[in-house]
Amino acid sequence: MRNVLIIGSGKSTSYLLKYLLDKSVSEKLFITVGDLNIENANKLINNHPNANAIMLDIFDNDSRIPAIQNSDIVISMLPAHLHIEVAKDCILLKKHMVTASYISPEMQALNEKAKTNGLIFMNEIGVDPGIDHMSAMQVLDRIREQGGNIILFESFTGGLVAPESDTNLWNYKFTWNPRNVVIAGQGGAAKFLQEGTYKYIPYNRLFRRTEFLEIEEYGRFEVYANRDSLKYQNAYGLNDIKTLYRGTMRRVGFSKAWNIFVTLGMTDDSYTIDDSENMSYRDFVNAFLPYSPSDSVELKLRHQLKIDQDDIIWNKLIDLDIFSAKKRVNLKKATPAQILQKILMDSWQLAPNDKDMIVMYHKFGYELHGKKYQIDANMVVIGENQTYTAMAKTVGLPVAIAALSILNKKITTPGVQIPISKEIYKPILAELNTYGITFREQEVPYLGYNPLSN
Amino acid sequence: MRNVLIIGSGKSTSYLLKYLLDKSVSEKLFITVGDLNIENANKLINNHPNANAIMLDIFDNDSRIPAIQNSDIVISMLPAHLHIEVAKDCILLKKHMVTASYISPEMQALNEKAKTNGLIFMNEIGVDPGIDHMSAMQVLDRIREQGGNIILFESFTGGLVAPESDTNLWNYKFTWNPRNVVIAGQGGAAKFLQEGTYKYIPYNRLFRRTEFLEIEEYGRFEVYANRDSLKYQNAYGLNDIKTLYRGTMRRVGFSKAWNIFVTLGMTDDSYTIDDSENMSYRDFVNAFLPYSPSDSVELKLRHQLKIDQDDIIWNKLIDLDIFSAKKRVNLKKATPAQILQKILMDSWQLAPNDKDMIVMYHKFGYELHGKKYQIDANMVVIGENQTYTAMAKTVGLPVAIAALSILNKKITTPGVQIPISKEIYKPILAELNTYGITFREQEVPYLGYNPLSN
Repeated sequence: MRNVLIIGSGKSTSYLLKYLLDKSVSEKLFITVGDLNIENANKLINNHPNANAIMLDIFDNDSRIPAIQNSDIVISMLPAHLHIEVAKDCILLKKHMVTASYISPEMQALNEKAKTNGLIFMNEIGVDPGIDHMSAMQVLDRIREQGGNIILFESFTGGLVAPESDTNLWNYKFTWNPRNVVIAGQGGAAKFLQEGTYKYIPYNRLFRRTEFLEIEEYGRFEVYANRDSLKYQNAYGLNDIKTLYRGTMRRVGFSKAWNIFVTLGMTDDSYTIDDSENMSYRDFVNAFLPYSPSDSVELKLRHQLKIDQDDIIWNKLIDLDIFSAKKRVNLKKATPAQILQKILMDSWQLAPNDKDMIVMYHKFGYELHGKKYQIDANMVVIGENQTYTAMAKTVGLPVAIAALSILNKKITTPGVQIPISKEIYKPILAELNTYGITFREQEVPYLGYNPLSN
Repeated sequence: MRNVLIIGSGKSTSYLLKYLLDKSVSEKLFITVGDLNIENANKLINNHPNANAIMLDIFDNDSRIPAIQNSDIVISMLPAHLHIEVAKDCILLKKHMVTASYISPEMQALNEKAKTNGLIFMNEIGVDPGIDHMSAMQVLDRIREQGGNIILFESFTGGLVAPESDTNLWNYKFTWNPRNVVIAGQGGAAKFLQEGTYKYIPYNRLFRRTEFLEIEEYGRFEVYANRDSLKYQNAYGLNDIKTLYRGTMRRVGFSKAWNIFVTLGMTDDSYTIDDSENMSYRDFVNAFLPYSPSDSVELKLRHQLKIDQDDIIWNKLIDLDIFSAKKRVNLKKATPAQILQKILMDSWQLAPNDKDMIVMYHKFGYELHGKKYQIDANMVVIGENQTYTAMAKTVGLPVAIAALSILNKKITTPGVQIPISKEIYKPILAELNTYGITFREQEVPYLGYNPLSN
């Protein structure tokens, strides 16, 4: 038997565990799931003979070290900042490791030690980052093998609600970490490349500089820019590219309404409000509006943001009950972002039968023999239910497939890495295909960045 | 003879030195001005027998320590972050010290040592901070002595161009450090108290949430909020106040136009632009606008910010020549804020005969015997020329008067302090009055915060 240790049994462990359990007999796997709380793990294991849940406190050496020692490979599904504790042990105890998270500087610093010990530390192998890397590199490599010269790459991902569960005016529900949605885009100007020049969008304009996309059968989406579109320029081999843009997908109209919160200052996470505990939702809104006892909070907000009486954006605010004088914030010394998150969670929770959806969209522009071409590729995955979500599927399956591939020595290059080499992405994408995680590709006329211009 | 050491002979040293030289015979003063560059100091001293300029490098112990050792009091007119070097010596060598700067945490940490050694470290005794503290405390103390209960305090200062030199559409020229103007308001939401509730304004709304003031003979001004209006709430004894608001004054219309730069992201000082050296002003503007080869930079900007063809705000941009394809940025790896500063300095420099102006406006609201009252007080100081500016006068004179008062033992309380006690502000304000630095006070009906409401 080969022992697989999964640390962390949160939302994205369902498919990961199911994949490994389904293969546990044929592949001779025994899976141990370690978490502080093993209830969810036990539910997912459902008495399967080839698995076990153990209480694991990653800050307790006596709990963490033996669990890692007894494994052949470690999959860390912990929050990103906790991987490093596990990674250090994996170096000492000579274990391979897989995570779905961005490589932190601390993780990167282990690269030499991992290589020296012949260890594979595979990171960024969830959906975004993960499937985006693999699916992009597959097309980029193919174009380059044909002799094409890449001039444009745009890549967008969104974690959304499935069309059949899309029941509110925002066309949005929280399908993942709500906090990341509230603070998205903060911390500096978004930077990207458009037709050879750097472009910058400050946070206050981020949700007003959206672009639009259409996916057959699924309709229209909008995109706002990620902080750093150039992060993988070098890793993808795109140093001479003219246009490089990465973004986050929402349904059309979300960003314009979201910008109300940005403009008022409600997404600020840098200071706390002293008396937040005793505030009503209405008090919270009023804290960002001028004092004027003769005017309502509603009219002050409409006036400040110039919202017409018949603008649908207003109904989106009303739907959140954000002007309620009865609903209390009930959070001590909370930041505006924390309070806004609480208000949104009242309205944007998935209902028991709601399903989520992951959408991804790539555009590849290239020159070949003096002509310009464009390939568009998109992927849509719909969740089954609230355990087997599209997010859990697209995060967990690549992680699981990579872990098994490492055990089976199909992936052999050691070091701290992300899945951008053909050795890795080709078999994994092929297997994901059999699980319905599929890209639809089409050749389209090269539109460049500005299809309406001459 | 008493020896006064002035370290730093920048823009604000003219009046400071003139005051001390004029009194040097009667008060038996010898003034030493120390700076890396003594040219300006020698010009100001103009062969006066009671003064001398010396080369002083504050990072060189052999240069700094003897100069301080030979003095009876040290006036530091250095940039704020450099005072601490001097302050540490003043503790060791037992010298009083005066600065016009905000008390840094490092300076505050010397309080006990200063007290133990009987040393007066007087700070924040320029104009803002300085005259604002003293003039506010004088009225606040008087109201309290009469039995009044302060319910409102608002305080505004502006460093502007004098009406006779106000010749551009922005009604603004750089009369002080341009950098501080460009990055003003950054670093977090502005916080203040209005009628008993905290209010917050994010940076992106700061220049749209202005208020208006009128000063007899000088016309209308606007105000945007300072970062932390509550900074002196405790020091001023205003812990139970309902409205506390501090701000910066500009001529009406400045802020609305300035907000264009904020909105586009041109005031950002947190990242550098790689190819800034080779950019034209036009390229710089275009970096914050979408790519669209069929449209001009001008139309893209108008469209993004919804600027009508007949909006005067547009002429303000044109006046800066900000769309010039010929003028080069010529700054290596500059931040947007640095580039914007350079563009503005082309247009907002004072002409040789231009004069500056300092305006200050306080509102005091209070209750006495069940009735509400309001006192408005304002000060306007116009510069004489580009050496004897209003800024140099209002910064330098309080510093000089305080230094002489300390030498003459009229100010005797030791410790790191700001000028908020009657012992300090009363004689200094009286003397400033004889130099034309005068507050005009008037009783007005109590308007509270919202004069139009019922």
